[in-house]
Amino acid sequence: MAKDKVLMGTERRSMVINDEEKKRTAWHEAGHTVVGHLLPHHDPVHKVSIIPRGPALGVTMSLPKEDRLGYTRDWALDRIGMALAGRIAEELALGEMTTGAADDFRQATHLARSMVTEWGMSDKMGPLAYLEREESFLPFMPGPRRGEYSEKTACQIDEEVHSIVSKQYARVKELVQAHMDQLGAMAQALLERETLDAEEIIAVMDGQPLPERKRIEIPRYAEKARKGKDKRKSSLFTPRPREVPSGS
Amino acid sequence: MAKDKVLMGTERRSMVINDEEKKRTAWHEAGHTVVGHLLPHHDPVHKVSIIPRGPALGVTMSLPKEDRLGYTRDWALDRIGMALAGRIAEELALGEMTTGAADDFRQATHLARSMVTEWGMSDKMGPLAYLEREESFLPFMPGPRRGEYSEKTACQIDEEVHSIVSKQYARVKELVQAHMDQLGAMAQALLERETLDAEEIIAVMDGQPLPERKRIEIPRYAEKARKGKDKRKSSLFTPRPREVPSGS
Amino acid sequence: MAKDKVLMGTERRSMVINDEEKKRTAWHEAGHTVVGHLLPHHDPVHKVSIIPRGPALGVTMSLPKEDRLGYTRDWALDRIGMALAGRIAEELALGEMTTGAADDFRQATHLARSMVTEWGMSDKMGPLAYLEREESFLPFMPGPRRGEYSEKTACQIDEEVHSIVSKQYARVKELVQAHMDQLGAMAQALLERETLDAEEIIAVMDGQPLPERKRIEIPRYAEKARKGKDKRKSSLFTPRPREVPSGS
Amino acid sequence: MAKDKVLMGTERRSMVINDEEKKRTAWHEAGHTVVGHLLPHHDPVHKVSIIPRGPALGVTMSLPKEDRLGYTRDWALDRIGMALAGRIAEELALGEMTTGAADDFRQATHLARSMVTEWGMSDKMGPLAYLEREESFLPFMPGPRRGEYSEKTACQIDEEVHSIVSKQYARVKELVQAHMDQLGAMAQALLERETLDAEEIIAVMDGQPLPERKRIEIPRYAEKARKGKDKRKSSLFTPRPREVPSGS
Amino acid sequence: MAKDKVLMGTERRSMVINDEEKKRTAWHEAGHTVVGHLLPHHDPVHKVSIIPRGPALGVTMSLPKEDRLGYTRDWALDRIGMALAGRIAEELALGEMTTGAADDFRQATHLARSMVTEWGMSDKMGPLAYLEREESFLPFMPGPRRGEYSEKTACQIDEEVHSIVSKQYARVKELVQAHMDQLGAMAQALLERETLDAEEIIAVMDGQPLPERKRIEIPRYAEKARKGKDKRKSSLFTPRPREVPSGS
Amino acid sequence: MAKDKVLMGTERRSMVINDEEKKRTAWHEAGHTVVGHLLPHHDPVHKVSIIPRGPALGVTMSLPKEDRLGYTRDWALDRIGMALAGRIAEELALGEMTTGAADDFRQATHLARSMVTEWGMSDKMGPLAYLEREESFLPFMPGPRRGEYSEKTACQIDEEVHSIVSKQYARVKELVQAHMDQLGAMAQALLERETLDAEEIIAVMDGQPLPERKRIEIPRYAEKARKGKDKRKSSLFTPRPREVPSGS
Repeated sequence: MAKDKVLMGTERRSMVINDEEKKRTAWHEAGHTVVGHLLPHHDPVHKVSIIPRGPALGVTMSLPKEDRLGYTRDWALDRIGMALAGRIAEELALGEMTTGAADDFRQATHLARSMVTEWGMSDKMGPLAYLEREESFLPFMPGPRRGEYSEKTACQIDEEVHSIVSKQYARVKELVQAHMDQLGAMAQALLERETLDAEEIIAVMDGQPLPERKRIEIPRYAEKARKGKDKRKSSLFTPRPREVPSGS
Repeated sequence: MAKDKVLMGTERRSMVINDEEKKRTAWHEAGHTVVGHLLPHHDPVHKVSIIPRGPALGVTMSLPKEDRLGYTRDWALDRIGMALAGRIAEELALGEMTTGAADDFRQATHLARSMVTEWGMSDKMGPLAYLEREESFLPFMPGPRRGEYSEKTACQIDEEVHSIVSKQYARVKELVQAHMDQLGAMAQALLERETLDAEEIIAVMDGQPLPERKRIEIPRYAEKARKGKDKRKSSLFTPRPREVPSGS
Repeated sequence: MAKDKVLMGTERRSMVINDEEKKRTAWHEAGHTVVGHLLPHHDPVHKVSIIPRGPALGVTMSLPKEDRLGYTRDWALDRIGMALAGRIAEELALGEMTTGAADDFRQATHLARSMVTEWGMSDKMGPLAYLEREESFLPFMPGPRRGEYSEKTACQIDEEVHSIVSKQYARVKELVQAHMDQLGAMAQALLERETLDAEEIIAVMDGQPLPERKRIEIPRYAEKARKGKDKRKSSLFTPRPREVPSGS
Repeated sequence: MAKDKVLMGTERRSMVINDEEKKRTAWHEAGHTVVGHLLPHHDPVHKVSIIPRGPALGVTMSLPKEDRLGYTRDWALDRIGMALAGRIAEELALGEMTTGAADDFRQATHLARSMVTEWGMSDKMGPLAYLEREESFLPFMPGPRRGEYSEKTACQIDEEVHSIVSKQYARVKELVQAHMDQLGAMAQALLERETLDAEEIIAVMDGQPLPERKRIEIPRYAEKARKGKDKRKSSLFTPRPREVPSGS
Repeated sequence: MAKDKVLMGTERRSMVINDEEKKRTAWHEAGHTVVGHLLPHHDPVHKVSIIPRGPALGVTMSLPKEDRLGYTRDWALDRIGMALAGRIAEELALGEMTTGAADDFRQATHLARSMVTEWGMSDKMGPLAYLEREESFLPFMPGPRRGEYSEKTACQIDEEVHSIVSKQYARVKELVQAHMDQLGAMAQALLERETLDAEEIIAVMDGQPLPERKRIEIPRYAEKARKGKDKRKSSLFTPRPREVPSGS
Repeated sequence: MAKDKVLMGTERRSMVINDEEKKRTAWHEAGHTVVGHLLPHHDPVHKVSIIPRGPALGVTMSLPKEDRLGYTRDWALDRIGMALAGRIAEELALGEMTTGAADDFRQATHLARSMVTEWGMSDKMGPLAYLEREESFLPFMPGPRRGEYSEKTACQIDEEVHSIVSKQYARVKELVQAHMDQLGAMAQALLERETLDAEEIIAVMDGQPLPERKRIEIPRYAEKARKGKDKRKSSLFTPRPREVPSGS
């Protein structure tokens, strides 16, 4: 659909990817998709694809049921867990770690840090704001970023952030281990069809055969016109970038 | 009233908010309002609304009885407590934490930090000034912000700030627990009328039925003219911003 | 007198101050005045006023007996004590702490820090210079301010500064407690006359009735001409600024 | 071949190198080559040369079997090991350490640091991102680079990086000790022929005589035209720069 | 003499100094002079004056016997001791500490720091250079000054610097206590004549009566012409600046 | 020779140096020369002079036997030892420390630091790169120099650097003590002839009489033409600058 093109980026079908990479990407995205589907407070997974888009080798897209203005602690934890699911799937299924999860870790860490320092969601740090950027009113002079708190506080924040991410990693690893069948089926479906929509994802999760593909539809003008009204913020979680070690 | 429009921002009635968000905002603002009303040294709550204004989903506005030129320690503590009341109400009534209290925490922390570092209101730190910004006379070069004291002092300041905010959190949580009926009534009234004025707030607190609404009055010219004379500094406490996790 | 206008700033009689603020300011300035009068090495208090001037709600002005080119350790300690006296008077008389003493703390801390880091007046730190600003020869690049000494040294400096200010606080608190009658009389006299000159201050301290007020004299040309010769550096201690919590 | 000229830089045959330097370079590059050949997850060594190119005295070039979009943990560890092999060969064969391995250490350290801080490949640090550069959106004001984590975290990262590199050093040292014959043969072959291609390298490793040299072929136009299609990213590992102590 | 005018600054005889200040300055400069005369490796004291010059209330000037191109450890220690002698004299004779010694401390500390960090004169720190400014090649960007060594090293440097200055303080205090008579005579002579030359200083030290004053001589042209040849670097030690507490 | 003029700077025979300075410089340069001659991995000393050149009072020049492209650990240690030999000679022969060795210490420290942080020559720090300057790609914004490692690592580096320099100091002190006769002869020869060439240096070391001086030869054109071919990098070790304490 045209909307997906806008949200997910244009496909780069010309890009040559070898089979090993493709397989790895399929398991990685299958991890995000299965976990995103299973976690109770996560937004539903709307689409998943292993066709390269921009710098990403694959993408899993979730879409909130309705416009959201605030986020709960449960949502944040599930979202961290979902971000870690790609790496976990690769580890469990292929027994290897790759550089492809770097962006997932960045997102998970950033979210956990916001929970601790901005949203008062860590018991240890309490309902305080630990601001790193308050003084950034000067557009061209951000100033030292850690002026507001001591090294000891910085250390406690690090421990809390580490603790939150580690707990979600353990929780989601258990979850994936309990759903290896569905994970395998999802990866298989992705290798077959390259892109799965919500209906197909649900079918895989339910152990149903994949529904037959409809023909590609050219979006009609009426559909395009609707686009303006339908601007729910979708979450392009974990585009899997073509990470190249900077040392090479 | 026209003055409120100036102080609170223009309402954004076109913004679509789902029922869950609206309910959450009602409990959040009810928390601020009930606690602001109960705390002995807080300025009276003048108005509360769950109609979005600018980036805020709701707003509780208090107004000092008369122009104020200095602030007491008791006032500062109550104000910190009032800032934390939105989160406390959400937790106690809905059993969840959301990102919506981030700005409240920023204000509470900032106030507690000023008590400790500028106003000599912490016994441990004593009647000293712990200046972070003294050297900022250069408009485009603020310089490192923590040049005036050691890491150990920074750590003690952090502990005092944490201690002040935590104590107010505990105190206000008890207060809210003791007034769950009034909190529920206030949230209910907000969901019904969306905006409550001082008279309506007092009625809810006293367990009285809400006074009937007068028609909306177009402010007459005479009223506008009075505006210039009536410039007491109102406190738009805890506008509840439409916080979006920066990681999404 | 015209000289006072230059030294203390123009009065802002149009500013409306409520009675509570006025009372608080009277006790605050009375604290500075009584202590400034009693401390043996402090410059004599020349004038005290609770008429707002610029951002200050009140002002106590002392004037050295003659031009001074260096300062003794005793003078510095008394001056720190005098700076703390405003807060102490408020605490003892009204049982409350306000934000109004922020500038006093800044001055006391700054003076204590100079004693320790520049003037060799701390036994522990010895006759050394602990320079924070030596490298600031570049007008637009002050550089990190603490390049000259280690964190451990910074910590020792902090402890000495804290110790000096705390000792003066304790000493002056005792002094004020022993002179509560004179403090009360001074506050009362200030509420009556709003401004007291040296003669009136001495009368209050001696338990004498206030001398009758002379009429306001327009300074004659001859007096203005003398102004150029009479430039002893007066100390406008503790202008009490209209401090507004930055969080509101 | 023309492609190699592009990848490896133009030879500087005019540069005079004494025999001791040449011998040392031969052992150094032989170390890289033998280890790069033996480590199971390393890209095959495509060519090795001790003819100076740009600032490098020698160069070992490896080329992945096919285009690679992500990298595994095993690959990263082998690559670190391969980078260290030059120094190890010099130590074992010549009993001396030289400045020539400085760039190898830089690459190995950088890679190990990325494993720990970006790719979630350290158990101790977990699947988190430890970002040093996030705030660098301002092109001319990178700001302090370590704003995101505490000193304690920085210390743990250092320990993990040190541990990764040290383990690879020990592993590769053992590997080289077990293949001293092949190392010697490779160094000898390099001193004879100065440049070895993949076929020759394999012959040395297999204990076979060096295949006879073909004549130098002028690349035909057809070959040049193919160049555009053949852009696999080759790894010019460990160019051995002409390091000059900056103190001289 | 005209040379002295160049070296010491023009006298400011118009400046009014009260008797107490004058007395204090006399003792202060007498301390420098007596100690500078007694310490075996110090340059001879050439002149001492309590007539204000520029910002200084007094000045003691020493002149090396011949051009000096390097300095010994003994010279550096004596010079630190001489710098501290002004404060010591004030303390012993008048029983008070003043702000007037701030510049002396700056010089003593700076010299001790150079001994430790640049000249290899501390056994503990060894013959190393602890550079704070090496990177300052960019005229407008000095960069953080402490990039070259760790906090622990910075702490050790501080301890060594503190130790050097403290030992000299103790040594010179003993020296002054053993020469209180000469100190008193020197102060008295200064109060009488305001300026003493080398001959007069020696007379005071030897307990001789002050030689009678010659008339002031207008320097002849021949004398002025000699000025160019006589450029030994004199040391204007311890100009006693009119220090004003920056908090006033 | 003309080449020496280029390498060592033009002599400043007009500069007046007193006998004590001259003697001290002779011993200092004799220290460098004797030790440079004795240390097995040091480049041969080509010339030594106590005629001031630019800011240096003396200079010892060594020249590698042939062009060098890399440096061994042994060479680096000897070079550090040679740099320290000037101070050691002054201490042993004259019993005093002077400021004249500051630049030697800078060079020794810099070299030891490179061994530890760049060249993997410290067992404790291992074959890693501890980069301080990696981010310096911005010509006008070098950024904080220590972003790459923790305080604990910085401390370990400092200890290793201190240990390397201290060991060389002890080693070279022993060496000089064992060759005091040669040191004395070298100093004496320098005081006599002011400049010694390689032949003369060897004669002194061998206890032979100084070869008779040839007349000064004007370099012929043929000699000048050869200059372009003879560009081995000579090491102007330890120019002894006319260090002036910055506090004077």
